[in-house]
Amino acid sequence: MKTIKFSLSALGLAIGMAATGLSMTVSAAEPTLSKADFEKAQLHYFQRCAGCHGVLRKGATGKNLEPENMLKKGQKRLEKIISLGTEGGMNNFDDLFTEQEISNLATFIQMTPPVPPEMSLEQMRSHTKEYVAPKDYPTKPLHGLNWKNFFVVIERDAGKAAIIDGDTKKIVSHIDTGYAVHVIKGTEHHKKDTAKDVGRFWYTIGRDGKVNKIDLWQTPEKMLVAETKMAYDARDIAVSGDGKYVIAGGYWPAHFVIMDAVTLNPVKVVSTRGYNTKGEFINEARVAAIYTAPNESAFIVAVKETGKMLQVDYTDLDNLTITAIESAEFLHDGFFDPSGRYFQIAANASNKMVVVDTKDAKLEKMIDVDSLPHPGPGANWIDEECGPVGGTTHLGIGLVSVWGNDPINNPEQAWKLCYEVETDGAGVFIRTHETSDYVWADQLKHPEPEIQQSVQVFDKKTREIVKTIRVTEEEGKAALHMEFNADGTEVWVSVWNRTDAKNPTGEIVVYDAKTLKEKARIKGLTTPTGKFNVYNRMHHKT
Amino acid sequence: MKTIKFSLSALGLAIGMAATGLSMTVSAAEPTLSKADFEKAQLHYFQRCAGCHGVLRKGATGKNLEPENMLKKGQKRLEKIISLGTEGGMNNFDDLFTEQEISNLATFIQMTPPVPPEMSLEQMRSHTKEYVAPKDYPTKPLHGLNWKNFFVVIERDAGKAAIIDGDTKKIVSHIDTGYAVHVIKGTEHHKKDTAKDVGRFWYTIGRDGKVNKIDLWQTPEKMLVAETKMAYDARDIAVSGDGKYVIAGGYWPAHFVIMDAVTLNPVKVVSTRGYNTKGEFINEARVAAIYTAPNESAFIVAVKETGKMLQVDYTDLDNLTITAIESAEFLHDGFFDPSGRYFQIAANASNKMVVVDTKDAKLEKMIDVDSLPHPGPGANWIDEECGPVGGTTHLGIGLVSVWGNDPINNPEQAWKLCYEVETDGAGVFIRTHETSDYVWADQLKHPEPEIQQSVQVFDKKTREIVKTIRVTEEEGKAALHMEFNADGTEVWVSVWNRTDAKNPTGEIVVYDAKTLKEKARIKGLTTPTGKFNVYNRMHHKT
Repeated sequence: MKTIKFSLSALGLAIGMAATGLSMTVSAAEPTLSKADFEKAQLHYFQRCAGCHGVLRKGATGKNLEPENMLKKGQKRLEKIISLGTEGGMNNFDDLFTEQEISNLATFIQMTPPVPPEMSLEQMRSHTKEYVAPKDYPTKPLHGLNWKNFFVVIERDAGKAAIIDGDTKKIVSHIDTGYAVHVIKGTEHHKKDTAKDVGRFWYTIGRDGKVNKIDLWQTPEKMLVAETKMAYDARDIAVSGDGKYVIAGGYWPAHFVIMDAVTLNPVKVVSTRGYNTKGEFINEARVAAIYTAPNESAFIVAVKETGKMLQVDYTDLDNLTITAIESAEFLHDGFFDPSGRYFQIAANASNKMVVVDTKDAKLEKMIDVDSLPHPGPGANWIDEECGPVGGTTHLGIGLVSVWGNDPINNPEQAWKLCYEVETDGAGVFIRTHETSDYVWADQLKHPEPEIQQSVQVFDKKTREIVKTIRVTEEEGKAALHMEFNADGTEVWVSVWNRTDAKNPTGEIVVYDAKTLKEKARIKGLTTPTGKFNVYNRMHHKT
Repeated sequence: MKTIKFSLSALGLAIGMAATGLSMTVSAAEPTLSKADFEKAQLHYFQRCAGCHGVLRKGATGKNLEPENMLKKGQKRLEKIISLGTEGGMNNFDDLFTEQEISNLATFIQMTPPVPPEMSLEQMRSHTKEYVAPKDYPTKPLHGLNWKNFFVVIERDAGKAAIIDGDTKKIVSHIDTGYAVHVIKGTEHHKKDTAKDVGRFWYTIGRDGKVNKIDLWQTPEKMLVAETKMAYDARDIAVSGDGKYVIAGGYWPAHFVIMDAVTLNPVKVVSTRGYNTKGEFINEARVAAIYTAPNESAFIVAVKETGKMLQVDYTDLDNLTITAIESAEFLHDGFFDPSGRYFQIAANASNKMVVVDTKDAKLEKMIDVDSLPHPGPGANWIDEECGPVGGTTHLGIGLVSVWGNDPINNPEQAWKLCYEVETDGAGVFIRTHETSDYVWADQLKHPEPEIQQSVQVFDKKTREIVKTIRVTEEEGKAALHMEFNADGTEVWVSVWNRTDAKNPTGEIVVYDAKTLKEKARIKGLTTPTGKFNVYNRMHHKT
């Protein structure tokens, strides 16, 4: 390992740190890989490890994997951890990688992490493509379908988004997108300035930073209308209330990019590198979540490693005003309360739900909850005792935490834990609908197949689990992520074909929201993941 | 040169850049230095080169000095350039360094630049020192002197600040400060919320990032009351309008730090790393200038390499609002107009004066001027034709540029060049006073001693030079920086003992502001540089 350290010791300054000389050590013991194996391990690391551990391996949701720590563990121990996982939350990878691939990964993380390149605005713009010219956009839907009950569905491992007709349950189109799309967002109703044709345009963000624009009024084969790329690694995206801008956040480079929503051409890039809540500089300060404030002309950008919630005013990009709200690490994902004023987001390593007041652009509260909260799309409903409440699942424990979220009319209950519901396994997603008596939680993080394949439903009134639904029993499959249809009469649950991820053998199972009985299975999908019902999303029905 | 590049090519992504494989090349031709010579060259580079070329050597006011460019030039050519300078603005260093030192510097810049370390808030706080406890601060001046006519004077190469009594011209105290202090600022009158005992406390920022607090009410030996350190390399400092916070800007790390003005303990650090106006990421995005807006509860932070003017609201540090105003590169130094609303700053490589409207936190205008504007403390006065005007000297040409700066009452002339005055040589500082008929400009950048040692004075009415004053004739000395006394009857000019910088053989020459005749010489100063008259600065008399 070759390290070059900078020294100002010659200046005779007491700089209070260890860098007191030019140190150039080449450790003879550093493990090596062939160029081909290194690149393959790097790819596997990027696809399966970087999300939790970071490309620079400084750790976040996962542990620090820098060489000085990994060399101590050694090759054999690392291989075992990668193969079998740990009780601390590390997944097992023996079903996804060969023994040789695991061995190479174990070697790779003992080597110096390669620093990825930067990406300039000009480089991003070189990826901007127009598939349909804006002047050729139709003025009304070109198909006779009820597009407001469409579901836009991530087909994770196919690099596609499926458009599914919620009325007929038929797949309208598979659209090419970036790799492993994390989130898809459409234009939404906004208190100040709702976009024209709200709900029509949808935007996908791939894990590879590719951004695609979908026009739901087009004929199926022409729905993909524009494309660009804003990072090498990315997670979230949002559309401004007025529909003029799209914003996407990078894991690497650590920045957010504002694009023209018509052409997708990047117009502004802002670095999120900075200091965490302890005042330490973080180079890999990743954008975990981005939302549009429903009541304000502002984006909310959550920076994972710095614990900063950025409220970004999008009304003047040349004189860009950002309020950096200090909260807690590591920020992950969140959702608005029903009023649209408060954003509730998990700071998972701190076991807190952070609440931001977008009206005053300030921290409203931090709520202590159990291990590793993760609400996904989140859920808001009315509790008889606490009034309006929000809820989250947890990555670290089978539990749904529920808190009051109406400080105006129920100040006594606001931002305090109201109650908890124990589930069989740790989960990733929670969901409900204003017309439903129930709240649904998945259990994707549980290692046992029968629990991972089941979702649990609890009653809003009794606060008790009324049904455990085994969504699939097939080997290598898992159940995750719920979404209601437009009128709230159905709940759609995804089934991941985890070990057969190259084929369209995943499915969505549709349940009656009242009887909780299975209604239909939509086949022919590859690792279906997040699902976004157009009507519910454009009206903030969470 | 060992380089490790990151590759995502295995992902099959068209990332549009050259990094398409793991490249580990060790060039056999890379020049080397012994550890001792490397550290000494690194120190010399930091002290004399980094200001213009950057520690990472990517260039700013000076050219890019990265190894790929330097290796092409070669050892002999580099030695010649360092020795003799260039017509492009590079200084000669044959009078400051030995031949061997120049040779080592030439070798050093062909080697990979060492990346300096970061500095955390905790590291900064470990440098905070209390010399006088706030509870022991006097409630009235402890000396019988007219402290409002004190001059606080930078003794650059001594790492000291001298306090000089403007009435008696006697040196009250030499105070230990950081290395090569760049700027000293005191509390000022503020439209919204002026600090208690305004003008009493002064804050120095060393090039080594050391911050010192001076209490002018103390007895001379106790004037230094507190200290901290906020960077390894720094340039500017300011005090909030209410006197509660001190802010200082780092060259490295690229950040600004807000400190408690009582104790100097750092409370907030914000990175300035980000994208320049072309959308390229800049790691070394240095804070060139920091001012307090006289009418707003905000700091103005100029980031040199990104061309961004940050207006930082200091009323809520936990929910910190910053407006990033896009302007031009490379921002350097500036001054407010007489109304306190508009900040006028040089973007020297763009040959522009940038004007920011602090009331609306937006770019007001960019004025095209001649080569490399550099106003230093700046000068505002009334012109018979154009009304209120501002003026700047230029590093690149012997010229004073004058523009209208009153958009409210003289909109026709505002932010347009009104006239120019040719001087004998390129300069660094300009100054006037509301009671004076004249404007003074130095010529520090001119290579010929007789011009470098002379300042020029022009008449506000006739716009013509009325006198060239040879401030010193001694070899190795130069004249620079003018400051008026409190009632505007005197002009103080510094004389640098450039080649004898280790001894107190510099001086300040005092002139009658009306007759322009010499009145006094204040001896016993080491490289006196910037001078700050308490009364003028606390009332924004520029």
